[in-house]
Amino acid sequence: MQKSIMILLALTTSASAASLRVFPYDGAKFLTGQKFDVRIEASDIKAFKGVTVTLDGKAWAGFQQTSSAEGKYEWTLRDQSLNKGGVHTAAVVIQDGDSTVTRTLSWTAESFKKTSKSARNVIIVIGDGMGWNTVNAARIVAKGYNSENGQSRGNLEMEKDLQGFATVTNNSLDAFITDSANSAAGIMTGQKQEVNALNVYPDNTADTLDNPRFETIGELLKRTRGMGLGIVTNTFGTDATPASIATHTRRRGDYQSIADQYFNGPAQPDVLLFGGSRDFIPKSAAGSRRKDETNWIDQSQKKGFSFVSTRTELLKADSSKLFGLFNIDNFPSYLDRAQFKRPEMLGSFNDMPFLWDMAQKAVTTLEKNPNGFALLIEGGMIDKYEHPMDWHRSIWDVLELDHTVAYLKEYVKAHPDTLLVVTADHSHSISVYGGYDYTKGPGNRNAVGLYETSSWPDYYKSVDQNGIPVLKDAKQGLAVGFANTPDYCETYTWTEVFMDPAVSDGKGGYVANPEACKTGVLRTGNLPTNASSEVHSSDPLPLFAWGAGAQNFYGVIDQTDIFFGISRALGLNPAKENR
Amino acid sequence: MQKSIMILLALTTSASAASLRVFPYDGAKFLTGQKFDVRIEASDIKAFKGVTVTLDGKAWAGFQQTSSAEGKYEWTLRDQSLNKGGVHTAAVVIQDGDSTVTRTLSWTAESFKKTSKSARNVIIVIGDGMGWNTVNAARIVAKGYNSENGQSRGNLEMEKDLQGFATVTNNSLDAFITDSANSAAGIMTGQKQEVNALNVYPDNTADTLDNPRFETIGELLKRTRGMGLGIVTNTFGTDATPASIATHTRRRGDYQSIADQYFNGPAQPDVLLFGGSRDFIPKSAAGSRRKDETNWIDQSQKKGFSFVSTRTELLKADSSKLFGLFNIDNFPSYLDRAQFKRPEMLGSFNDMPFLWDMAQKAVTTLEKNPNGFALLIEGGMIDKYEHPMDWHRSIWDVLELDHTVAYLKEYVKAHPDTLLVVTADHSHSISVYGGYDYTKGPGNRNAVGLYETSSWPDYYKSVDQNGIPVLKDAKQGLAVGFANTPDYCETYTWTEVFMDPAVSDGKGGYVANPEACKTGVLRTGNLPTNASSEVHSSDPLPLFAWGAGAQNFYGVIDQTDIFFGISRALGLNPAKENR
Repeated sequence: MQKSIMILLALTTSASAASLRVFPYDGAKFLTGQKFDVRIEASDIKAFKGVTVTLDGKAWAGFQQTSSAEGKYEWTLRDQSLNKGGVHTAAVVIQDGDSTVTRTLSWTAESFKKTSKSARNVIIVIGDGMGWNTVNAARIVAKGYNSENGQSRGNLEMEKDLQGFATVTNNSLDAFITDSANSAAGIMTGQKQEVNALNVYPDNTADTLDNPRFETIGELLKRTRGMGLGIVTNTFGTDATPASIATHTRRRGDYQSIADQYFNGPAQPDVLLFGGSRDFIPKSAAGSRRKDETNWIDQSQKKGFSFVSTRTELLKADSSKLFGLFNIDNFPSYLDRAQFKRPEMLGSFNDMPFLWDMAQKAVTTLEKNPNGFALLIEGGMIDKYEHPMDWHRSIWDVLELDHTVAYLKEYVKAHPDTLLVVTADHSHSISVYGGYDYTKGPGNRNAVGLYETSSWPDYYKSVDQNGIPVLKDAKQGLAVGFANTPDYCETYTWTEVFMDPAVSDGKGGYVANPEACKTGVLRTGNLPTNASSEVHSSDPLPLFAWGAGAQNFYGVIDQTDIFFGISRALGLNPAKENR
Repeated sequence: MQKSIMILLALTTSASAASLRVFPYDGAKFLTGQKFDVRIEASDIKAFKGVTVTLDGKAWAGFQQTSSAEGKYEWTLRDQSLNKGGVHTAAVVIQDGDSTVTRTLSWTAESFKKTSKSARNVIIVIGDGMGWNTVNAARIVAKGYNSENGQSRGNLEMEKDLQGFATVTNNSLDAFITDSANSAAGIMTGQKQEVNALNVYPDNTADTLDNPRFETIGELLKRTRGMGLGIVTNTFGTDATPASIATHTRRRGDYQSIADQYFNGPAQPDVLLFGGSRDFIPKSAAGSRRKDETNWIDQSQKKGFSFVSTRTELLKADSSKLFGLFNIDNFPSYLDRAQFKRPEMLGSFNDMPFLWDMAQKAVTTLEKNPNGFALLIEGGMIDKYEHPMDWHRSIWDVLELDHTVAYLKEYVKAHPDTLLVVTADHSHSISVYGGYDYTKGPGNRNAVGLYETSSWPDYYKSVDQNGIPVLKDAKQGLAVGFANTPDYCETYTWTEVFMDPAVSDGKGGYVANPEACKTGVLRTGNLPTNASSEVHSSDPLPLFAWGAGAQNFYGVIDQTDIFFGISRALGLNPAKENR
């Protein structure tokens, strides 16, 4: 017994203490021919003698040693791919003195076959933060119930006539609660990524733009099929979700680089319609947050884009490449744009398109491409208003998205070779738990109706020019809560000028906004004291699909599976489709 | 102009002010041959001269005037059915002096055809309160993630190998937030019902047992096919969900009547396994809440049942009719029974079966019936512990249910003529929003990890004899919140002896439990001040199905659609199946 312990100790001390990190991670899955970078990082190497990298048992040449410090060695090999379907084995063996450090990884490549039934176009719609409970609240607001027989007055457009249907789980490479960057990017690539990352694996360098990359569906379809590519959102255009289909950075806040990548990067969309002009105008221009004098409004036109900045201009546009910037930052919410119309919220932007205007123009522009198109449409303000628990603004933005989906479903009906996928990137902790009697004023806990003491919501009884409920006319509303909150004051109602739920205490923490506390119930939060707003939840997401290949989506799937479902619909095999 | 106004006024004043309420409600949908009672209630009749009731234009005879007061007239006709498929029109015309009061209703009857592919057996599993977010939390607890590559370590059994898949909306006849009674009863009958109602429409009498009824799937299958019927739950046996398949009352609290209906009522199940002996033992017995001396333990044996009261007895049972009472009230939670084992929670009940024990015995008992069987299995304590926001107990009970589903899926694999449906009756406002570091003790807001600052949950690393995580061994857990709460103190952790979140203030209100506030963060609630616990939410529910006819469940459906999905799977047409 004594002897065997000694041997064990001897073995332990003679082994290298080196650590080895390799990306793609073990278990990664790609399309055949989908490009990815390989990164090997070794640390605590005492006496480096050499490295061997093999793929399926054969030497894998070409790795560049990109940096080195005391005991640290890194190798990068870019633009690789697995060109045969099935399971592949990569092995890294480092000789450290007399020891070897080995890491073996299993990667899978999947390929699909294009047939006459394959999708020609794909439209991906993301309701940012639009979990199941958010969709439910939107349905109740838009449709309501028949009080005579307890029947719902209908489902949302996104819930009807389904040809593909799934519930989607979501998490990051480094966390089980995801942010919008890596979650949308997971949908676009099939790769788990870190919080705040866009289509890159982690590395050990400070530079956020040199991380190992992998191809997005947008890049793949441009490269292999020459398809048109479009991005539409009502947030600022360099935000995480729009960026997810076409750009790469470890830090979603690299806004200037994201703007540049749209025009110089690997995907180069043909249609870009969104807010956030500040990232596309030179630093000398008012409101810019660029650090250089690049003016993408000018330069895009030299690259053949038409530029528009109002709804009026958008509707008239008739080019094959279209760039639209309709706000310096995010669009105000649907309620602000279509109903409240308060100058404090609209600023100088009085002619912004609706999401469906942008969607329609994007489709009619992109369909000029004879090779088909891929289009990403985000309803981005859903998330932006769920964070501050301004659920009214958020839910009305779901309704704007649903009207957009109605148009897209009609398009798919007329163009059955198009796949339409509507889903979300992550959820919020929202829940409808009762009714609220708006006539009893804000902040009244005892105006909340539960079970049979709640009145039927009457939002649907008065609608605006778009057929969307007029919030101001509602008397019987919903009681909606969030399961995670900072300190805040619950008013149960809304304000025409947006109000943050919590404000800085000047000491690194956040406290309830005293303005809201004039009418609201003070509720101590369950989040860390430095949280300024509600945060994302891990709750599951809906996926709805129509058109060619919609049936690929079924059951409980992970968000990275969506990439493969879309690829299957398209019959995509990039290994055989190099143009 | 003046003239026409006068005519209008004249018409208005000559019209009767009588009001008329009729059930089945307008828009009701039945199976052909499914029995229902018709109830007509007229009030404010000034000069009653007569009533005419027609169905599809033909006189509908046999209505009994059941009660009458000044200006009030009521008529009831029981045990009716629509025997032809399609839309039917019922009309009620009351002559009131010179006026007539008319109500026209449209009802639909649907029939299905039995084929060689029809289901022979049906097993309905209800996780009480098990909305999508609850399932998500259970998956994370049971499976966890691979921290190396961010992959979930798997889905729950209930989420895998799906053959039917839907998301279910839910609401009552009188409210958009449902309780367990009418929601489960809606699943069993296809009828919207009022909060607290079990398989009856409202009426204007105080008697809760004389309301208009309609047949449940349990009664239908007994009556038309002579199938075996079983009920299994870990709550008390007269609770709303178990009662929903076999009993009728306007008030779910009619426990004695529900107990009696199990043995004397229209369905008379062959297998009854649950807690709640207090409703089945004579009032003179310790713990009874009956108001008479009926002893169903004795009487059931005279009706051919074997009676068991422990797991040991259950496993040995080998009869074709089985009655088991394993607790005076609800079972303690899985955590209490399998892990904590505290006498304060177990009382004198040390040999209770697991839910899967009861499910297995129910199946092997019922399958002796040559005509097939219908079995309702409820995981009922999920809901009971979500109300007091004791999410640990609740989620571990989902895991007990999931192990039960694993067994049932195996059964369906071996018996593909069986339909297995797993769903929920309503949701709670639960959400997983981050990690909680249990090592930092209870009630520490800053031990909550968000996004990349949350640690991977480690529950899965230590499991008990059933393969279910050992809660006590977890160091990195989940941060779970509820979007509606009474005043309570948030501890983020659990106690081995259950603790209510709020306690009476002696003035009709509820305040945070001071015991929890010793370690927890005091949070003012957003519910009315008379709420003692978290309440149901309207959030959508999962539905998972396997076996014969599972594909009938797809997309976003209402809970009343489940009845028709099951009927379709069975090829049920009661109009042609009278035995």
